[in-house]
Amino acid sequence: MSEPVVVEVGLGTRAYEILIGPGLLERAGAEIVKRLPGARAAIVTDENVAAAQLQRLKDGLAEAGIEPAVIVLPPGEKTKNFEALQEVVDGVLAARLERGDAVIALGGGVIGDLAGFAAGIARRGMNFVQAPTSLLAQVDSSVGGKTGINSPRGKNLVGVFHQPKLVLADTVALDTLPLREFRAGYAEMAKYGLIDRPDFFAWLEKNWQEVFSGGPARIEAIAQSCRAKADVVARDEFEQGDRALLNLGHTFGHALEAAVGYDGARLVHGEGVAIGMALAHRFSTRMNLASSDDAARVEAHLKAVGLPWRMADIPSDLPDAEGLLSFIAQDKKVKRGALTFILTHGIGKCFIAKDVPASEVLSFLKENLPA
Amino acid sequence: MSEPVVVEVGLGTRAYEILIGPGLLERAGAEIVKRLPGARAAIVTDENVAAAQLQRLKDGLAEAGIEPAVIVLPPGEKTKNFEALQEVVDGVLAARLERGDAVIALGGGVIGDLAGFAAGIARRGMNFVQAPTSLLAQVDSSVGGKTGINSPRGKNLVGVFHQPKLVLADTVALDTLPLREFRAGYAEMAKYGLIDRPDFFAWLEKNWQEVFSGGPARIEAIAQSCRAKADVVARDEFEQGDRALLNLGHTFGHALEAAVGYDGARLVHGEGVAIGMALAHRFSTRMNLASSDDAARVEAHLKAVGLPWRMADIPSDLPDAEGLLSFIAQDKKVKRGALTFILTHGIGKCFIAKDVPASEVLSFLKENLPA
Ligand SMILES: NC(=O)c1ccc[n+]([C@@H]2O[C@H](COP(=O)([O-])OP(=O)(O)OC[C@H]3O[C@@H](n4cnc5c(N)ncnc54)[C@H](O)[C@@H]3O)[C@@H](O)[C@H]2O)c1
Ligand SMILES: NC(=O)c1ccc[n+]([C@@H]2O[C@H](COP(=O)([O-])OP(=O)(O)OC[C@H]3O[C@@H](n4cnc5c(N)ncnc54)[C@H](O)[C@@H]3O)[C@@H](O)[C@H]2O)c1
Ligand SMILES: [Zn+2]
Ligand SMILES: [Zn+2]
Repeated sequence: MSEPVVVEVGLGTRAYEILIGPGLLERAGAEIVKRLPGARAAIVTDENVAAAQLQRLKDGLAEAGIEPAVIVLPPGEKTKNFEALQEVVDGVLAARLERGDAVIALGGGVIGDLAGFAAGIARRGMNFVQAPTSLLAQVDSSVGGKTGINSPRGKNLVGVFHQPKLVLADTVALDTLPLREFRAGYAEMAKYGLIDRPDFFAWLEKNWQEVFSGGPARIEAIAQSCRAKADVVARDEFEQGDRALLNLGHTFGHALEAAVGYDGARLVHGEGVAIGMALAHRFSTRMNLASSDDAARVEAHLKAVGLPWRMADIPSDLPDAEGLLSFIAQDKKVKRGALTFILTHGIGKCFIAKDVPASEVLSFLKENLPA
Repeated sequence: MSEPVVVEVGLGTRAYEILIGPGLLERAGAEIVKRLPGARAAIVTDENVAAAQLQRLKDGLAEAGIEPAVIVLPPGEKTKNFEALQEVVDGVLAARLERGDAVIALGGGVIGDLAGFAAGIARRGMNFVQAPTSLLAQVDSSVGGKTGINSPRGKNLVGVFHQPKLVLADTVALDTLPLREFRAGYAEMAKYGLIDRPDFFAWLEKNWQEVFSGGPARIEAIAQSCRAKADVVARDEFEQGDRALLNLGHTFGHALEAAVGYDGARLVHGEGVAIGMALAHRFSTRMNLASSDDAARVEAHLKAVGLPWRMADIPSDLPDAEGLLSFIAQDKKVKRGALTFILTHGIGKCFIAKDVPASEVLSFLKENLPA
């Protein structure tokens, strides 16, 4: 294979590399041994990914003499729960892995978040390697060390910061990803453009078809996204400031995910983010912060790539505006009662807005909910 | 009340104070507000401590206008499990506490470890305050940020490092602690002398009666212990080196606790540590590392204060030597198959011994198990 693109995540003693390119699963053993000599390993994955990609990773590990324990979970957002966490931790301990050994997440963001959390708490912190197989995981969830599970009280409310030692983003692994999931990951990619890289957003408007079909533009877009995320993470590892910008679209998005009961048949995470980003731009327009043209441009692009962009695009009923607002208020980006949103002055000009009046959000939701 | 003794835990941005003295629960609200202005709070405690000490803490918080949520769990080591963890996390989220609010552990080491872990993972890390009410918790578990629960695979195998913002060691709270538990905590106190403070051990040999009966010697002994622990923690927060010295007596001790199924009626943690320390000294003698006189002095002191000091002191049957060894091998202080023990060259001269041959340990256990 050709040499992978390397993106550095600059976190001092916790710095690590993201490798991006085709064929990295076959090379996983060599890359891991280089960084963690002598480590044993456990792979955490889900049933879909096990069927599509597990053998490639096992072969790649075997070449370096690593015979991993394998823990396979049901696919889907519902797997990010306490019981699955306990199962993964127990599997890792049952394999008698030690702190210096590696937990490898092979899968999308669900597996990455869950396995990373388990690696963060088993023996109070073990080595962790991300092998993201969904586009969303490659451009977003595998980078930055946020791990966690959902609570009945809300999404991602339980977890730790636990940085991986290495991220292996095998771009060939995306070939078995369902188109709908690819699109969902694309939403997070577009997000980096919308936050503070207007040129990248414009580039995506031109090149999105090639990103979807594969080839150099795809690798380039993934690398750009990882660089964007790594920059933010390096500035604010523990989300005390800037990092919150990455939540563009997520406050609305999480509320919608919660509203459909995390039912992936109706809405997957990236789709919630797509609608959330469109709503954040439209709400910014309503607050006289951004031009209506910019909001329309975002909506048009999401629509062009086949993403949902408004609440009416979610199949079947949603709660009313009050119901949605209460999901928003329980979301973790709430500080002493005031609502915090990521709003925008236009494409690539997002900012953190604290003290957004709940009443404005409520009226906005009423106007935008389908009748 | 008189001013409390203050011990600083020097951990840079994570530095905090341990306050030691009578009446600190009544003063808790004021001390918390000083450090975390505006914070709301949840108290985590167990049924015994709720009956004996909860009202004092609630009154102390009320004086500062804090009305806490209260989560009460069954007492005992068995409470350090995944279900209780989930219950505490859910209780904290149900109270809608945010990252800047405080989880307060009111209780012994079980509650401290569990509540600290919950605080470490709820919203990926909330403020945490320790109000230790057992002697063991005041001199050991509340200091240093190790939190966690047990796994069916072994003790404390799951957890995080999460430092408190404040430790309130109210020495009057110890008045309702059963004598047996007081003794168990005393074992950890003696441990600091045995590790590297021979003068403190000699002082305890002279003053232990006053430590048990109360008064200035008790406060002094607690403060000395906290200083000893804080020193080690400041040198090695994440247990990559020196901090392992604190495990003196714990490798044998944990194996014994596991062997009795964590049945506190037969063996509580500090008692396991007492026997473990005596065994570590005796084993060091057997390895020609320390004089037999020193081992005898340790045994005599433990016996004098009424602590168990040999495996024969544990009521009812233990597994055989092979069985005990397999508990030791599963303990977390194992690195790539070799056994790591804290051994000693004599009182106050402990060191970390890696590569201790399992065969020696096995023979030693065979010689020392009751027939
Ligand atoms: N930690 C973070 O910083 C962060 C950031 C963003 C999102 N997230 C989390 O990520 C999760 C969403 O991630 P996701 O969209 O990857 O979901 P996912 O892990 O559920 O994957 C989506 C679906 O694609 C399947 N799949 C994945 N890779 C495949 C492949 N190569 N071939 C065939 N099928 C494949 C999965 O089995 C699943 O059915 C959410 O839980 C979200 O909270 C975390
Ligand atoms: N985190 C660490 O660094 C660390 C260090 C040492 C021990 N530990 C852990 O600490 C635990 C043991 O702590 P422990 O011995 O305090 O056990 P514990 O918390 O079970 O307390 C012992 C008993 O005393 C009762 N109790 C506590 N305070 C009381 C009071 N003031 N009045 C009346 N009853 C009271 C409790 O209800 C319990 O029944 C173990 O789980 C051990 O693993 C942790
Ligand atoms: Zn996202
Ligand atoms: Zn202990």
